[in-house]
Amino acid sequence: MRTEYCGLLTEAWLGKNVSLCGWVQRRRDHGGVIFIDLRDREGLVQVVCDPDNPAMFEIAESIRNEYCVQVHGAVRARPEGAENTDLISGKIEVVCQQLTVLNASATPPFQLDDDTLSETTRLTHRVLDLRRPQMQHNLKLRYRVAMEVRRYLDAHGFIDIETPMLTKSTPEGARDYLVPSRVHAGHFFALPQSPQLFKQLLMVAGFDRYYQIVKCFRDEDLRADRQPEFTQIDCETSFLNEQEIRDLFEVMIRTVFKNSIGVALAESFPVMSYAEAMRRFGSDKPDLRVKLEFTELTDVMKDVDFKVFSAPANMAAGRVAALCIPQGGQLSRGEIDGYTEFVRIYGAKGLAWIKVNEAAKGREGLQSPIVKNLHDAALAAILERTGAQDGDLIFFGADRAKIVNDSLGALRLKIGYTPFGTEKGFFEPGWQPLWVVDFPMFEYDDEAARWVACHHPFTSPKDEHLDLLATDPGRCIAKAYDMVMNGWELGGGSVRIHREEIQRKVFEALAIDADEAQQKFGFLLEALQYGAPPHGGIAFGLDRVVTMMAGADSIRDVIAFPKTQRAQCLLTQAPSEVDERQLRELHIRLRATETLKA
Amino acid sequence: MRTEYCGLLTEAWLGKNVSLCGWVQRRRDHGGVIFIDLRDREGLVQVVCDPDNPAMFEIAESIRNEYCVQVHGAVRARPEGAENTDLISGKIEVVCQQLTVLNASATPPFQLDDDTLSETTRLTHRVLDLRRPQMQHNLKLRYRVAMEVRRYLDAHGFIDIETPMLTKSTPEGARDYLVPSRVHAGHFFALPQSPQLFKQLLMVAGFDRYYQIVKCFRDEDLRADRQPEFTQIDCETSFLNEQEIRDLFEVMIRTVFKNSIGVALAESFPVMSYAEAMRRFGSDKPDLRVKLEFTELTDVMKDVDFKVFSAPANMAAGRVAALCIPQGGQLSRGEIDGYTEFVRIYGAKGLAWIKVNEAAKGREGLQSPIVKNLHDAALAAILERTGAQDGDLIFFGADRAKIVNDSLGALRLKIGYTPFGTEKGFFEPGWQPLWVVDFPMFEYDDEAARWVACHHPFTSPKDEHLDLLATDPGRCIAKAYDMVMNGWELGGGSVRIHREEIQRKVFEALAIDADEAQQKFGFLLEALQYGAPPHGGIAFGLDRVVTMMAGADSIRDVIAFPKTQRAQCLLTQAPSEVDERQLRELHIRLRATETLKA
Repeated sequence: MRTEYCGLLTEAWLGKNVSLCGWVQRRRDHGGVIFIDLRDREGLVQVVCDPDNPAMFEIAESIRNEYCVQVHGAVRARPEGAENTDLISGKIEVVCQQLTVLNASATPPFQLDDDTLSETTRLTHRVLDLRRPQMQHNLKLRYRVAMEVRRYLDAHGFIDIETPMLTKSTPEGARDYLVPSRVHAGHFFALPQSPQLFKQLLMVAGFDRYYQIVKCFRDEDLRADRQPEFTQIDCETSFLNEQEIRDLFEVMIRTVFKNSIGVALAESFPVMSYAEAMRRFGSDKPDLRVKLEFTELTDVMKDVDFKVFSAPANMAAGRVAALCIPQGGQLSRGEIDGYTEFVRIYGAKGLAWIKVNEAAKGREGLQSPIVKNLHDAALAAILERTGAQDGDLIFFGADRAKIVNDSLGALRLKIGYTPFGTEKGFFEPGWQPLWVVDFPMFEYDDEAARWVACHHPFTSPKDEHLDLLATDPGRCIAKAYDMVMNGWELGGGSVRIHREEIQRKVFEALAIDADEAQQKFGFLLEALQYGAPPHGGIAFGLDRVVTMMAGADSIRDVIAFPKTQRAQCLLTQAPSEVDERQLRELHIRLRATETLKA
Repeated sequence: MRTEYCGLLTEAWLGKNVSLCGWVQRRRDHGGVIFIDLRDREGLVQVVCDPDNPAMFEIAESIRNEYCVQVHGAVRARPEGAENTDLISGKIEVVCQQLTVLNASATPPFQLDDDTLSETTRLTHRVLDLRRPQMQHNLKLRYRVAMEVRRYLDAHGFIDIETPMLTKSTPEGARDYLVPSRVHAGHFFALPQSPQLFKQLLMVAGFDRYYQIVKCFRDEDLRADRQPEFTQIDCETSFLNEQEIRDLFEVMIRTVFKNSIGVALAESFPVMSYAEAMRRFGSDKPDLRVKLEFTELTDVMKDVDFKVFSAPANMAAGRVAALCIPQGGQLSRGEIDGYTEFVRIYGAKGLAWIKVNEAAKGREGLQSPIVKNLHDAALAAILERTGAQDGDLIFFGADRAKIVNDSLGALRLKIGYTPFGTEKGFFEPGWQPLWVVDFPMFEYDDEAARWVACHHPFTSPKDEHLDLLATDPGRCIAKAYDMVMNGWELGGGSVRIHREEIQRKVFEALAIDADEAQQKFGFLLEALQYGAPPHGGIAFGLDRVVTMMAGADSIRDVIAFPKTQRAQCLLTQAPSEVDERQLRELHIRLRATETLKA
């Protein structure tokens, strides 16, 4: 039915007859001639319908936008001056000899080129939304990325092995999606949050190198970049250490960026410890495009006569830090008030600041509501450590470290991304990948009053920290690493525990007793007894990688049929009510408060 | 840690130092020297530990089967006569200089080379079972097949687009796996039985060519070749007709067989109508390796004075057919009795037979309990149509056509697969692919008292049969096709309906009223209104394709972590009980008869 895609028809076809299939993007009547912009997934081509072929012309007159048609015709050069350099097919046009309507179209509920559509409209009419060139581009890019990943991993000895979707519920971390069993009354499968344990078992089974591009599921409250089901590039290898694993996957990401979007990433990604990232940027996924950095002030604020600073400076989990904005003196009082409001989102109670008008004048040269509260040594330390120049503005965060990091970290990005930030050179566009390494093994969960795993309970501690598992879990560092780019976590992984006795110690540190460990993870503990190899891996979020490459606003723009933030499919109306008969077969009933379908 | 895989170490490495990582397959002490067969996923290599390196030798003495070790050593030629031609590494051995135990192993619960293990043992200790070379081979083959499929489809413009796993329940066909929604009380997602509607929507959205290697789910009672979750190679294309689609995927399968297992399939697969396949073989997936065929006798048995034959011959849905076994006269009475028992499994009430001792003698030359019941014309027709020679045996089936086809079809294979069948040349080993086409659109479901779709409700009828949808659905033929090989359905597909009004007519024929159609398939009907292109596709069962290629007994042997026939994972003990808290969050409770976890 088709000689070539519309969007790929070039001068190579000049003088030849072709068949094309596609959709009517636009029909223009001009000087008695009908021009059709015919669209397929590869782009547009111009079709010319002359009235000297009346049968064909009559059909051309009848067609409307989004009709699906077939065109037979001859390729000719466009008249001089009528070329369209935006199109691959822009130098030619097709003179229509025969026109067949393959399927008519009702008038679409919106114009495909309307950029102001609400997300609800787009997701309800997703099929038409997907016809838009941007969505076609995004999903083709997604495919190209996945295929490049496969090519790279294949060339490096990784094999794709499928792991089960119907697995066991281990309520740890996020909430599971459950699937009631019909055969085993009162029992449930869980959809996998990741194939973590299965891929480790495949290493124990000797497959050496595994990967899978695989759906994972988390029943969490959704944020802009989360979906109930998301796709991981999930990888695991035996017999490589932390550094070797990072190198392998750094080259993978570099290769994929190069081959998918022609971007050459840095030859060698910077490697930064978790501690350094928190200290300098208040974040374990710092956006290095923003050149602003924190200044540590906790030590110098311990003895100031200003409780707002001294109290957190003297707390074990407290922090005082500054963010110096070069030439920030130009910010208006209104802007500063706006930022004060902004940091409240992150729990900060306020946003202290100092404008450096004339540093040489000492205290007199500083404009600020708080200067009077700080002794000379503190002021000197602020100026020296921030390196503030006349005209700069210094913001302060003082609170529990988490609040300081979150609020000042968000402020750093917010100011960096403003036109002011760009203008002053705080923001350098481009791609800024890095590795964040040396994560803590555990963080303390105040609510549960126990240590929880920062990564997951199967992550190996550093060899030299094994003793800390029992004595001081908070100081125990993990062989874990995240790949971060432009402030997004693209992937994360770790070297895993491959010795049963260490796995048991980690379970103990997490207050998982032997019975619970056996019941939940007995199969892992058993597998580790039979010569489990040293192994580790990483998982990348495909949705995120592609969203970032496509420059899309949301991961929903790189997923064909996404759910809303209320975890609904507006196209098919899933989830939906089901028959009572189905529930009965599954040995469940709805809770009394719920209505049943008749 | 490793220079090369153990199993790939060849003479190219002679004289060089290497590092190897792997598992101890076997340790032999021979003349004061310790030989280790070291195994990794690529195979074995022999490691020689001499006592003149006491530190290393002491470690060598300590190691046991399935220890995970690292070996540094030098590659040398094996002594003459000690080569092992079964191994890629069989001409060399590695003289161990340094031996490191990476992880010790408890004594495995079974020998890896034990071929008599029960399936329960194998699935309970799946990690060790997967270390067996056969399982390593099967999963590597599976990967190779999937990758070849991707390469082919990529080269032909197909793009992999992911479709949702959390979809809408449409109870039609098999039973859905349901997933309760936490956010929408009383509502459920369903896991997809196939991405059928989504791939059609992608065609309407203009993606032109789609594929996905994707998990599908059916909550059915399990048979030997079924799993609750299985993997489809799911494909769809626009703008190709039935023949073109078949050609494209025939070449794909031929390419994949060639590149994965080096098998050259027939240049052009035979194409057989459903009607012909049923007539000649009683099956829509005939195993053409078996050379026996049915003989139609319904017409000649209408007027015989033998109710067993004449009653079905005069029923609308009845059939009388024969299966002539050349030289079958050699079968013993015991064997014939055995076959009589066998066909009862398929509902046959008995198995009539005639031994042709001397055809020239007419009735006298035939040995059979039923000859006396048949008139001369019937006997003559039997001999003529079957072409039976002296010494042959003719079996008869007479019943509802389904029972005749099932029972005589099974008998045909059973006899074909016996040593007798092979010896007499009824069975020709090799690969016998074919297309079965022209399936009926509908079959009548007596229980539901309505027509149901043979393929699925989105399959297009033949253009010339559109009118039959309303007038005579039973005679309406579909644009559907199955690819069959050696008696297995490898894949099936169809040209789809791309016009809304035809889709509505098919729903009507299926007694799905407008309201129900709107509620279940409204999104499809809407999409078809906007210039849906002509499209069609096919889905192959990856598990089956690989099982067949691997010559495995069960699809469980080509799946890393399969479920049992009771839909259980013996390794992880899924499905399992869950916390009451989880159920409460999902707005469900167990039925009163079920016990709750405390």
